[in-house]
Amino acid sequence: MIPTLTLIGIGTGHPDHLTEQARKAIRSADLILVPHKGSSKSDLADLRFQIIEGLRPLDETVVTFQMPVRDGTRDYVDAVNQWHDEIAAIWTGKIVDAGNPENAALLVWGDPSLYDSTIRIAKRLDPLRKIVVVPGLTSVQLLTAAHAIPLNTLAAPVTITTGRRLRDQGWPDGAETLAVMLDGGCAFRHLDPGDFDIWWGAYLGMAEEILCSGPLADVSEQIQRLRAEARADHGWIMDVYLLRRRA
Amino acid sequence: MIPTLTLIGIGTGHPDHLTEQARKAIRSADLILVPHKGSSKSDLADLRFQIIEGLRPLDETVVTFQMPVRDGTRDYVDAVNQWHDEIAAIWTGKIVDAGNPENAALLVWGDPSLYDSTIRIAKRLDPLRKIVVVPGLTSVQLLTAAHAIPLNTLAAPVTITTGRRLRDQGWPDGAETLAVMLDGGCAFRHLDPGDFDIWWGAYLGMAEEILCSGPLADVSEQIQRLRAEARADHGWIMDVYLLRRRA
Ligand SMILES: C[S@@+](CC[C@H](N)C(=O)[O-])C[C@H]1O[C@@H](n2cnc3c(N)ncnc32)[C@H](O)[C@@H]1O
Ligand SMILES: C[S@@+](CC[C@H](N)C(=O)[O-])C[C@H]1O[C@@H](n2cnc3c(N)ncnc32)[C@H](O)[C@@H]1O
Repeated sequence: MIPTLTLIGIGTGHPDHLTEQARKAIRSADLILVPHKGSSKSDLADLRFQIIEGLRPLDETVVTFQMPVRDGTRDYVDAVNQWHDEIAAIWTGKIVDAGNPENAALLVWGDPSLYDSTIRIAKRLDPLRKIVVVPGLTSVQLLTAAHAIPLNTLAAPVTITTGRRLRDQGWPDGAETLAVMLDGGCAFRHLDPGDFDIWWGAYLGMAEEILCSGPLADVSEQIQRLRAEARADHGWIMDVYLLRRRA
Repeated sequence: MIPTLTLIGIGTGHPDHLTEQARKAIRSADLILVPHKGSSKSDLADLRFQIIEGLRPLDETVVTFQMPVRDGTRDYVDAVNQWHDEIAAIWTGKIVDAGNPENAALLVWGDPSLYDSTIRIAKRLDPLRKIVVVPGLTSVQLLTAAHAIPLNTLAAPVTITTGRRLRDQGWPDGAETLAVMLDGGCAFRHLDPGDFDIWWGAYLGMAEEILCSGPLADVSEQIQRLRAEARADHGWIMDVYLLRRRA
């Protein structure tokens, strides 16, 4: 048997969002590595433990690791590459400490393929392991489901992008629908509000879920206020939104 | 209680891809409507029945309906609108026949939000029902998981589009990664093969799953051959692929 590292998409925190495949993978892993990200996101770390605890004992086969700090003084891509190397080295160390079990696993928020570096880091393990990916529901899917809307309009394309890109580069040429993730600061403020509808969601799938939608001109300020208040309340926020050009 | 219509995303056919939320929704529905699409896609209809049968008896609460035929002689958008009205009327009829149960449901391939009209049709029910959407894994997620690749490159956007659009309009301006669905004829043939890598998958999540990936210049013909052969064998094919500009 080739040793594997299974990356298990868990959706955004609600145990009912796990697939049967994810549940089986969590149950059958010989070792599960769980990051400690620091105190402000502790709700998220706790959710991972809650999910695991619902499926198997939290014994010595569930091991935490400390995320290294990314070097903010270097070029972005260099710093990210070095950071990924460091994380991979930490995983390797934890796997060796645990006696090199055949099937190690990590739980990944949402789907491991979407704006997440776990797959890239996993490919830096030394010695290499076979990477197995278990897909999970993304925050974009929870968003469209919560609002009961299609992602695309009839036969039209959809672009998924980041808040930073929307802010720096504006509305992408030719796009009709845009899903925006990783937005630290309401990048939709930089669009002409009369041109778009928005469907926004925060803490999707969690008890704290907040939704707001409407013509951007009507709800932009409300979303900014909701977001600031929720962030102050919880100490952290995760939000995602869909923008569509108005007909 | 407001009567509801629950649209349950079931992924692409493998029972292990169902979320716990989808399983609960299938179990608790008062009525499940299942389409008969015709003989060539009968494998797909069967998979829906298999999934239901794994969770509840196939009794009189599981009702099939005949999909109407879309009028090919009219303008595309008009024809689709009329077709959706007809389907909504058929659902309404089946729901009335079943005594107007509180919670009717439909199983939707993949995720109901992605290139699927079920949400749009559901909004045409008369009288209206509250639409509840249960997200499911999309074929794009099964594709990236099967190839163990990220959907996006570092912090870059992704566009999801159709084969028809890729064929008619070429590579979208500014796109780096393109996920292509609903492609009846290998639209990637119209790209410059030297510029792209491709990750292709057919029958994802099913026993017949086929994967192929590599530089487009190397694998384009192989994929076209695999696709033609598989389609001839099974009588139908569902495939999806990711294209990325080569560095
Ligand atoms: C590092 S990315 C990971 C995305 C994840 N892999 C997925 O499939 O959704 C984090 C971003 O995902 C979005 N996100 C993740 N969880 C969320 C949630 N529960 N509610 C709203 N947005 C969420 C936010 O845009 C956040 O900035
Ligand atoms: C009408 S769309 C529905 C998409 C679906 N709602 C989803 O979330 O994937 C049908 C297209 O999805 C893709 N697809 C669906 N199931 C698939 C499978 N099992 N394997 C590969 N592609 C699939 C194909 O591109 C197909 O043309």
